[in-house]
Amino acid sequence: MPTQSSISSAQPSVVQFARGIPPLEAIATTELTAQAEAVLEERNDIFQYAPLGRNQGDPNLRDQLGAFHGVAAEDIFVGNGSLQVLDLLAGYFLKNRRALVYVEAPTYDRAIEIFERHGAEVVGIPLEADGLDIECLQRRLASDVPALLYTIPDFQNPAGVTLSLEKRKALVDLAATHGFTILEDIPYRELRYHGTAPALLRELSDRGAVITIASLSKILSPGLRIGYAISNKNTSQALAGLAEGTYLSPVPFCQAVAARSFATGLVDSSIKRVRELLRPRHDQAMAAAQKWLGDNILCIPNGGYYLGVRLRTDMMEASFLKSARAEGVVLTRGSGFYSKSQQPGQGTLFLRLPFQALDPAEFAKGLERLVKVAETAEPQENAVYAGGPA
Amino acid sequence: MPTQSSISSAQPSVVQFARGIPPLEAIATTELTAQAEAVLEERNDIFQYAPLGRNQGDPNLRDQLGAFHGVAAEDIFVGNGSLQVLDLLAGYFLKNRRALVYVEAPTYDRAIEIFERHGAEVVGIPLEADGLDIECLQRRLASDVPALLYTIPDFQNPAGVTLSLEKRKALVDLAATHGFTILEDIPYRELRYHGTAPALLRELSDRGAVITIASLSKILSPGLRIGYAISNKNTSQALAGLAEGTYLSPVPFCQAVAARSFATGLVDSSIKRVRELLRPRHDQAMAAAQKWLGDNILCIPNGGYYLGVRLRTDMMEASFLKSARAEGVVLTRGSGFYSKSQQPGQGTLFLRLPFQALDPAEFAKGLERLVKVAETAEPQENAVYAGGPA
Repeated sequence: MPTQSSISSAQPSVVQFARGIPPLEAIATTELTAQAEAVLEERNDIFQYAPLGRNQGDPNLRDQLGAFHGVAAEDIFVGNGSLQVLDLLAGYFLKNRRALVYVEAPTYDRAIEIFERHGAEVVGIPLEADGLDIECLQRRLASDVPALLYTIPDFQNPAGVTLSLEKRKALVDLAATHGFTILEDIPYRELRYHGTAPALLRELSDRGAVITIASLSKILSPGLRIGYAISNKNTSQALAGLAEGTYLSPVPFCQAVAARSFATGLVDSSIKRVRELLRPRHDQAMAAAQKWLGDNILCIPNGGYYLGVRLRTDMMEASFLKSARAEGVVLTRGSGFYSKSQQPGQGTLFLRLPFQALDPAEFAKGLERLVKVAETAEPQENAVYAGGPA
Repeated sequence: MPTQSSISSAQPSVVQFARGIPPLEAIATTELTAQAEAVLEERNDIFQYAPLGRNQGDPNLRDQLGAFHGVAAEDIFVGNGSLQVLDLLAGYFLKNRRALVYVEAPTYDRAIEIFERHGAEVVGIPLEADGLDIECLQRRLASDVPALLYTIPDFQNPAGVTLSLEKRKALVDLAATHGFTILEDIPYRELRYHGTAPALLRELSDRGAVITIASLSKILSPGLRIGYAISNKNTSQALAGLAEGTYLSPVPFCQAVAARSFATGLVDSSIKRVRELLRPRHDQAMAAAQKWLGDNILCIPNGGYYLGVRLRTDMMEASFLKSARAEGVVLTRGSGFYSKSQQPGQGTLFLRLPFQALDPAEFAKGLERLVKVAETAEPQENAVYAGGPA
């Protein structure tokens, strides 16, 4: 990590490292508006309840999603965003209180919250540069088999890590041997800026032990709130039953706009647009990260939104976040990405640095400031931190 | 109940008594489309995530709802339909497994399902022609105080009953004395065709012990999936926290269309439209009900969608539903509106007869057929029934 010494003492403009949402320019608003207008013109039933039996999702949208993923439409369940889908999956699989769930450490904070709300004990398995620590998982499995293992295998939130093909195969084998279900959550998978994607865990499993959770939020529109699960007919129907008893059906209008966006090619062009917008940001952000953070970086992701950093420092997290804020850097609390029983470890702070919505120069400026904080700030008590949704 | 003898033996056209949804002509589709088009023109942010802090609902919509109900916007929480709001309220109030919930017997079947899914024991308090049996409730309260009491005080689903003002006052007093929370669910309240409405339970309570659950589904559009709770700032914020951890935020587009529909007067004109459409259907349906069903009718509702019938018959429910189906009448299974421990009682079947979507002559034809079934059909084993969502 190079020494840095030239930050202005004037109040700097704030670098926002705390939100994992797409930049507005990554959303094809004009084209989406045209799809929405066409739906309003074509359909007179979108202001009515969805017809009976649509709790699993609009058939047109499920057909399109099936074609996109190469699976049968009956294997797809559509909900109001992928978080809602995860909540229903947790409700379905965690009927027994104190069920055990394994997650990556760190992982998506809201996934931990959902599993815990459904009564589960959530245990983190350490994340390495190529994904889950499989040896640690094997040791755990020798004594405790979970109901679910939750993984974000591509450009993980919050660490940016992609699970290697070798580890994917090992994980699928372990699921088959020990009899647990894998939930693979793939919101960032299509946002690959370099290289080729390893197979999905679901594609590597021949026993139906993997359920894929996906979303249109990062490739088309978050505001449509379209998430879905790919499993099998039985599980999809069970989720539909739970959905009916929770919110009846997802929003007909949003599903119609999404289906039309697939049919007209807007989804494909939108994915292309996002990749072309974010690839140069990614490349410049990674160059800056290597310059300023060196081997504190967990890995160089080839896609997604996030750079994960394990910062070696003796500072307490609260003090670090407060000092960063004073230097004009807003961070999400990294410890929130770990379950209560697992933390990054003594002498290490975990930082999630989203690069998708920042000008590369701004991103680099943020890193420069963080380095200054790590090298100069004094530990403080009663510190505050900047939280905020992903 | 008059004798009836002249049903044709040819397969009759089916009378559908099984769905409690608005008829399409009760939805101002053309006007709603105009609102939606205007939102698409005015707003460039509806395809993005809702801004931070919008988990409680869009501020414009909450302002409009506050003005509509004469409450502060901060007291309002907006979710994806009122069932979703009820699910979050259940999650908030029923953190202890085996909490006790009192409901009306009969009540909305999905409410029972939600409370039970959240681990509650659901106990039904009998419903009389003027609402809950308050004396029975008092006896229950002497030994067991629930966490929640759930009531649909206006034109109840499924029985059509409206809770009298006297009983409302008694119920609010009991809640204050014994320390339980009342959830009053009022989807049908604005659909009053005759008379004037008693005060809301919330308006009669000075202790904040009543939370109102409401919906735009029956007065504007079910497809927008807009439901909301009126409570206080603290409870609304707690619900917003739960919502954020379940589905992030409700759909921005739908909320914008709803807010604009209030602002432009469409909600008011839509309520007027629905009342004018349904009043004559109601009046003719009630005349037919008095002719064919006599004092099997629980009460003559002055609004809403439903006529509740306690049919005195020795037939088993499954046999009755099967025979009705054979005569061309599709019914929801009435016992589903009761918790497992309460049922209509020996020698009585409960029937929910929605009149809002039927031509009055068709409604009367359905009653005529039901009378024939009750008088002539033989009890049968292994019978099937027609279920279906409300």
